[in-house]
Amino acid sequence: MKYGFAKRVKHLQSSAVRDILKVIDNGNVISFAGGLPDDDMFPVEAVQAAFDKTFQSGKKALQYGVTEGFMPLREIIVERMKTKGIQSTVDELLITTGSQQAIDLFSRVMFNPGDVVLTENPTYLAALQVFESYEVKVIPVLSDEHGMLPDDLAYKMKKYKPKCVYVVPTFANPSGKVWSLERRHYLLELAKRKKVLIFEDDPYGRIQFNDEEIYTPIAALDDGTHVLYTSTFSKTVVPALRTGWIKGPFQIIRMMAQAQQAAVLHSNSLAQHALYHLCCDFDLDGHIQLLRKTYFNRMKIMHELLQSANIPLSYVVPKGGMFFWIKLPEEINAADLLGHAVMRGVAYVPGAPFYVSDPEQNTIRLNYTHSTPDKLKEGMRVLVEVFSETNSTVHS
Amino acid sequence: MKYGFAKRVKHLQSSAVRDILKVIDNGNVISFAGGLPDDDMFPVEAVQAAFDKTFQSGKKALQYGVTEGFMPLREIIVERMKTKGIQSTVDELLITTGSQQAIDLFSRVMFNPGDVVLTENPTYLAALQVFESYEVKVIPVLSDEHGMLPDDLAYKMKKYKPKCVYVVPTFANPSGKVWSLERRHYLLELAKRKKVLIFEDDPYGRIQFNDEEIYTPIAALDDGTHVLYTSTFSKTVVPALRTGWIKGPFQIIRMMAQAQQAAVLHSNSLAQHALYHLCCDFDLDGHIQLLRKTYFNRMKIMHELLQSANIPLSYVVPKGGMFFWIKLPEEINAADLLGHAVMRGVAYVPGAPFYVSDPEQNTIRLNYTHSTPDKLKEGMRVLVEVFSETNSTVHS
Repeated sequence: MKYGFAKRVKHLQSSAVRDILKVIDNGNVISFAGGLPDDDMFPVEAVQAAFDKTFQSGKKALQYGVTEGFMPLREIIVERMKTKGIQSTVDELLITTGSQQAIDLFSRVMFNPGDVVLTENPTYLAALQVFESYEVKVIPVLSDEHGMLPDDLAYKMKKYKPKCVYVVPTFANPSGKVWSLERRHYLLELAKRKKVLIFEDDPYGRIQFNDEEIYTPIAALDDGTHVLYTSTFSKTVVPALRTGWIKGPFQIIRMMAQAQQAAVLHSNSLAQHALYHLCCDFDLDGHIQLLRKTYFNRMKIMHELLQSANIPLSYVVPKGGMFFWIKLPEEINAADLLGHAVMRGVAYVPGAPFYVSDPEQNTIRLNYTHSTPDKLKEGMRVLVEVFSETNSTVHS
Repeated sequence: MKYGFAKRVKHLQSSAVRDILKVIDNGNVISFAGGLPDDDMFPVEAVQAAFDKTFQSGKKALQYGVTEGFMPLREIIVERMKTKGIQSTVDELLITTGSQQAIDLFSRVMFNPGDVVLTENPTYLAALQVFESYEVKVIPVLSDEHGMLPDDLAYKMKKYKPKCVYVVPTFANPSGKVWSLERRHYLLELAKRKKVLIFEDDPYGRIQFNDEEIYTPIAALDDGTHVLYTSTFSKTVVPALRTGWIKGPFQIIRMMAQAQQAAVLHSNSLAQHALYHLCCDFDLDGHIQLLRKTYFNRMKIMHELLQSANIPLSYVVPKGGMFFWIKLPEEINAADLLGHAVMRGVAYVPGAPFYVSDPEQNTIRLNYTHSTPDKLKEGMRVLVEVFSETNSTVHS
C-alpha cells in the first residue's frame, strides 16, 4: 500500500547528526560528532539516590501527573533561574520532555504555515527541523562573533514581519559564540518595538568556563512579555531524564500546556520527582563547577591540537558550551572529508546542515565534552593529519 | 502584549477530565473521574529494582538514546505482542512517550487540515483533542455494543473518503465495550478495499476479566499493511514512566520516528532501560493477573451498587478495562449533577465531552480501578443517592 503522508512531512528529515551518530554508535570511532556530555561525568550515585528517595516518598510519584509539571520541581527551577537574573512565577513555567519539546510545543501553538522566524545562520539544527515541520519560513540574519548584526536584523524585522526571533545567545550550537550584552539589548528593544517574540534557547548557559564573566540571558532583561526562555537538565545532570522547561508569558505557557496534554499528557513525572530530590539533596552547583573545569580542560586540549594544524583554520575559542565551530580552507568540502576521517577512526559533523541557507561547505562542528583527554588527543592528531593531507591534495 | 496564536489552537482546549482531576486533586473527594490505575497496585519494589539494575548496568543508560527506542525493550515488546497474535519486527515498532504520543505523532505525519478520520461516538477524548489540533475533520460512525454498525461504516467510508478509522475495540474508553470478532473483520476488510488505515488504540487490552475469552486485536488479523497498533505500560506497570509503543507499516513508523526527533529527540531512555529490566526480572504477567482480579472485584462492587439505584440506568457490564459508561434517564443533565455530587464528596466525568457530535447529556463515565473497595462502596452509595434525588426532583 502507498501511504499518503501529510504535507508537513515533506520538510521532515532525519537529523544528519543523529544519523551519523547511529552509524558510529557501535564502532571504535572517536567521535566529536554528537552534542553529548561525558557519560563518566554523570552523577549516577546522586541520580540513583534521588530515585530511591522518590520510590520511598509514596506511590503517588508513579501515578499520572499534572501536565504543567511537578510543582516542587517548578518552584526549584524558579529559584535557580533567579541566579541568572530571570524572574518567574511557577505559572509562567512548563516542564517539558527536554528543551527540544519546548521548541516544538511553542511552534505548535504559535505558527501558521508561512509564518516567519528569524534565526542566526548557522543555528541549532533540530530547531530548524521543528520550524520546517510546521511549514514556517525561516529567514537567516547576518551575524558576527557578537551576535546578529543590528542593521540586518532591523532590515529583516521590517521586511519579513517575523512572529519570532529564535536565538541561542550563550555558547551557541553550533557556533560556540556568546552574544554581547549590547546586541542582546538591541534585539530585545527591537522586538518590543515591533511586537515580536524572542525564543531564547539556553541549554549550555551553565557550562561557562570563566566564573567571573556574566552572560545575562535576554529573558533577564525582559519584563516577562516578549521572551520565551528554555533550558534543560540534560547537560548539567543527565540527558536520559529528558527533562527541560520553558518560561514565558502566562497566556503562551497555558496554551503550550494544552498542547502538551494532546502531545504526551505530561512529561515523565518520575524523572521530575527524582530531579526535585536531586536538587534538594545533591550539590548540583558544585557538580556544575566540576563540569566546567573538566570541559574547559578538554576544550584547551582540542584548541592546542587545532593550533598544530599546518593549514589555516578559523574559529572562535569557546567561552563555554560544548563545541568548536571551524572553518577550513574554502576549497575543502567537509562532508567529503568525513569519509576519510571515519576510515581513519574519527568522526565529526559537517557544518552545512546547520545552515538555513547558503551553507558553507568548509565548516565543521567538533564536540570536546564527550571524549576523554586521551581520546581527544588521539582523535585530534588524526583529524589534523586528515585536514593537512586533504589540503595538500587539494593544492597538488 | 496580545499574542497571535496559530490557527490550530482554536481547537485546542484543556481536557475536561484533567481539569476536574486538578480541582479534586487536593480534596477529600472520592473520585470516579480519572482513568487512573490504583496507586496501591503499583509494583514499586519491582520498578525500583529495575531502576537499580539500570544504574548498575553502566552510564550509557543515562546518555542520549536512539529515537526509535532502546532495542532490547523493543525486542521484548515484539515478543509480548506475539502472545496477542500480532506479528512485528523491531523496525515496525517505535517507543513513544505514552500511547498518547503515538496518536499525536501518527496524526502529525499523516493528516493535512481537512483530512477525515472516522471514530466511534463517544470515543477517547484525548484522541479527539489531537485530531482537532491538526484540524482533522472527525466523523462519528454509529455503533452498538458490538462495534461500529457495518452499514453506517460503509456509507461513511464511501461518503467521506477518510484517511483513517480510529478505534478502541477492546474495553473502550469511555464506553467499556468490546467489539465482536465479526465487526473487527468487517472493518479490516473494508479498510483494505478502500485503502484506509486503521488506528487501533489498545491501552486496556491486558486488563481482561475472563481469562477464557479471546479478544483478537485487529492488528492480529492484518498482514501488517493497514493497521497501526498502539499500547502502553501505563496501565500494567505505572503511568509515570510515560512509555508506550506503536507498531505499524515500516514507512509510517520511520516517518513517525523523524517526527519524534523533532518533537522530543527521544522518549525517556532511563524509563525504557528500567522497563526492559522489569520485563526480564519481574513476573509482569503474574502482576497483570493480580490487576485483573483486583479490578474485576471492584467492577463487581460498582455494579452491585448501580443495581441498587431506584432509577433506570443503562450500561454494559465491562469485560475488562477501567470504566462503566452509564446512561441516566434522559431528563438528567450529568454536568449539572456533577456539582451536587462533588459537594457530597464524589466526582465523576460527565459523558458529553467524549462525543464527536450530538453529545448525550445524560451520560457519565465511572472509573472503578482507582478507588479501594471501601471507597467504592461509600462513593457509590452517595452517587446512587444523588441520582435518585435528582430523579425525584426532575419528576416532582
